[in-house]
Amino acid sequence: MTTDSWINETLYPDWGQRFLVKRELARVRSEFQDIVIFESFSHGRVMVLDGAIQITEADEFVYQEMLAHVPLLAHGAAETVLIIGAGDGGVLRRVLQHRGVKRAVMVEIDGEVIRLSKQFLPAIGGDAWSDPRAEVIVGDGIDYVRRAADASFDAIIVDSTDPIGVGEVLFTDEFYGNCARILSPRGLVVNQCGVPAMQADELRDTSLRRARFFPHVTAYVAAVPTYVGGFMTLGWSAKDATLTQVPAAEIRRRAEAAGILGTTRYWTPEIHTGAFHLPPYIRTHLPAA
Amino acid sequence: MTTDSWINETLYPDWGQRFLVKRELARVRSEFQDIVIFESFSHGRVMVLDGAIQITEADEFVYQEMLAHVPLLAHGAAETVLIIGAGDGGVLRRVLQHRGVKRAVMVEIDGEVIRLSKQFLPAIGGDAWSDPRAEVIVGDGIDYVRRAADASFDAIIVDSTDPIGVGEVLFTDEFYGNCARILSPRGLVVNQCGVPAMQADELRDTSLRRARFFPHVTAYVAAVPTYVGGFMTLGWSAKDATLTQVPAAEIRRRAEAAGILGTTRYWTPEIHTGAFHLPPYIRTHLPAA
Repeated sequence: MTTDSWINETLYPDWGQRFLVKRELARVRSEFQDIVIFESFSHGRVMVLDGAIQITEADEFVYQEMLAHVPLLAHGAAETVLIIGAGDGGVLRRVLQHRGVKRAVMVEIDGEVIRLSKQFLPAIGGDAWSDPRAEVIVGDGIDYVRRAADASFDAIIVDSTDPIGVGEVLFTDEFYGNCARILSPRGLVVNQCGVPAMQADELRDTSLRRARFFPHVTAYVAAVPTYVGGFMTLGWSAKDATLTQVPAAEIRRRAEAAGILGTTRYWTPEIHTGAFHLPPYIRTHLPAA
Repeated sequence: MTTDSWINETLYPDWGQRFLVKRELARVRSEFQDIVIFESFSHGRVMVLDGAIQITEADEFVYQEMLAHVPLLAHGAAETVLIIGAGDGGVLRRVLQHRGVKRAVMVEIDGEVIRLSKQFLPAIGGDAWSDPRAEVIVGDGIDYVRRAADASFDAIIVDSTDPIGVGEVLFTDEFYGNCARILSPRGLVVNQCGVPAMQADELRDTSLRRARFFPHVTAYVAAVPTYVGGFMTLGWSAKDATLTQVPAAEIRRRAEAAGILGTTRYWTPEIHTGAFHLPPYIRTHLPAA
């Protein structure tokens, strides 16, 4: 890679985004995937896994805030959180912002993603890596949930790649079944479900699958600049159907108590509650539609 | 242009989207701009003006619904509507869906955009072109508002390109001053303000300018897949500050009466009210912040 060349995202065969590259920082073939980190002109540093943009310094806050704060504040009293994937550390950092969280276990299969993120994207994980409440495991998420004790987590956050390649097992019956088993009675799972304008199958198929194990399955939306294609969906699987109905005023109260209010750049109590109102073009892909 | 080549959007110097082209349908240099229409593999037909993606068949509904239905239903009794730009006819079609609209004037400066849209994107304007309530003028929007009578419109919808090139005059003091003059007492203007993650100046500068002529200036958001970069903002300038406060239940009632409910793929009453709740990273660019 020479200076000032373009990197094209290869997620879709016929449409994509491209970045002008200022400087390539790392290019590694790990045991699991191709990892590229570069400095862009437009978005700060950018991490790419198997050709798909994963995170940029400029807009990571959107995805991380919505993936971490929405489930934790909807639950309202989450003390134990399991994070699958998210090797950059950004979700872990947001989860640990919550005063009530006593233990956050992060299971990332690819140690190279963690190593390179600490080296080249240190602000994204920040102090979370050394927080005494954090337990960072390099290992297999599907194996972890298989072995975990019943009712041992209040929330599970799945920050996987798309359901192809290394992330595929995180969309299986076995995985969701174990998630349901290891969650406490008010527990819930959120997982990234792609951009429906381009990947509607992903939302439809995983929602149907999750509905086999959870009585309440829906999704919520976030407009992430570099997950291009309009809204991305975050899947929601819960035992308790009331979690999505908490009014904005109560979410605000919880966020204040948790130490979150005023720290965010995308999330607000009103955006939290509004995110569950899906446009018809997205809602049509959910089982209840 | 050969078959199966890529078209790169050139809106930004260092980041952009690209489309694999199935077939080029038109390439015209009009009096005002370069116009390209092509058939994509991913988004149906696509229109490009001066290198910037303007509309695709696959996702036009997001932008058109939010640009037309939100102001008309927030107003609640709009009978006369002025549309500036929007030569593809999609906004005109949505405006004329409203039973209460008696007259819709559309002023598009570039007759070639209208001609090519009718020829290659006929579904976007649909029957609107021949609706007896429609008056389609090929002309200069800034000149039209200069000559229009006081208080002659209830809503003005500005579907311009970005504030460079041909669209620049639609962001001036003179234009906004005349808009304020020709609006009825509860009247309002909406105008596209770009994607703040990439074009924050556009939202900030035009909001400050609009605030000189309107007591209530804000913005609302829409996640348009091919206006890449997360939320785009639609500027809101009104004489009456209560228009953005109408509850979803009342918006639903109005949409039912207007014949809009159930016809949309993005807009819903809840998305309407939620769209005024801005993420902090966007709100910070507005005068009131």
